[in-house]
Amino acid sequence: MEFSSKLLENAVYEMSQLPGIGKRTALRLVLHLLKQPEERTNMLSDALMSLRSNINFCATCHNISDTILCEICSNTKRDESLVCVVEDIRDVMAIENTSQYNGLYHVLGGKISPMEGVGPQDLNINSLIRRVKEGQVSELIFALSSTMEGDTTNFYIYKQLEGLDVTTSTIARGISVGDELEYADEVTLGRSILNRVPFESSIKAN
Amino acid sequence: MEFSSKLLENAVYEMSQLPGIGKRTALRLVLHLLKQPEERTNMLSDALMSLRSNINFCATCHNISDTILCEICSNTKRDESLVCVVEDIRDVMAIENTSQYNGLYHVLGGKISPMEGVGPQDLNINSLIRRVKEGQVSELIFALSSTMEGDTTNFYIYKQLEGLDVTTSTIARGISVGDELEYADEVTLGRSILNRVPFESSIKAN
Repeated sequence: MEFSSKLLENAVYEMSQLPGIGKRTALRLVLHLLKQPEERTNMLSDALMSLRSNINFCATCHNISDTILCEICSNTKRDESLVCVVEDIRDVMAIENTSQYNGLYHVLGGKISPMEGVGPQDLNINSLIRRVKEGQVSELIFALSSTMEGDTTNFYIYKQLEGLDVTTSTIARGISVGDELEYADEVTLGRSILNRVPFESSIKAN
Repeated sequence: MEFSSKLLENAVYEMSQLPGIGKRTALRLVLHLLKQPEERTNMLSDALMSLRSNINFCATCHNISDTILCEICSNTKRDESLVCVVEDIRDVMAIENTSQYNGLYHVLGGKISPMEGVGPQDLNINSLIRRVKEGQVSELIFALSSTMEGDTTNFYIYKQLEGLDVTTSTIARGISVGDELEYADEVTLGRSILNRVPFESSIKAN
């Protein structure tokens, strides 16, 4: 792609460094900003820079927060004995949206992935073990994605917990509510059968 | 979507103002920036702001340029008597990529669109008529997209040219009607430039 302006080329290049944004999309976005009032660009730039330089992670669960402890960790109405282990803050948001969970979280910041050079030391695992050792946590709920990396991470943490007084569980895997059995993949459907729940409790959940 | 941080919410909001970027994508992009070194965010912000505040448009053809006259207008090897009228600079880039065109351009900055409140006075039409009146242009090639807005714009300019000594043509529609120039392959687009037809006959064809 040939650019008539170095400034334009530079802006498109930087924009195309974002995941899923190719050169053409980047050019479209940049030209859109050029058509908008200058203050739009300034507001976008300021918002990104101020987030990046003032960003704070909750000292306990590593969720993004503007305060030292996040709103969830500092909420005394939540159950401190339950900790749900998730990959990143999008998972926290997804679970919070269900309004079905009243415990706390622990954001790992990723999964163990030798292919991508992510080892246990790159994740917030030590602070999780520390939380468990402090004694207030009675159950850890693993809610990582069920990929090989997710399973590896679950297992690594599980091994680290040996000898500690804590229950571990994983979120139920089954076919989605409203899905047709016919279209479900075999592994998921198999898991749904194995992990069946008493009918009475499924009535209460609705 | 509930955010645990105002800074995050603000950054996601600003990002989601870009065309084609929804809230979820915006969140993904912003979280990606958070995982990258801080300088990446600064480079993106700086590139956007410096483009927006230092942007310059060629005094003759309104192409984006870092100099008063763009590289194309100031290139003495190009044919000054040919002017190709396009909607925006992406079209200039697309036509330049074909290497089939040796004339100059005129970037209108949009199309006449009453629906979107874009009238002739919002486009670089007056300066185009001025260029023609100055006498060096012998042929105008209309290369707007073949939508109703594009046709309206072509026709408006054509009317303004009455009594002036200039030939008009439109690029041959080797490429499908309704497609954007930007996405056409180079061979087809190059053929379209070579096989341009007199504007009068394109009216008859519709």
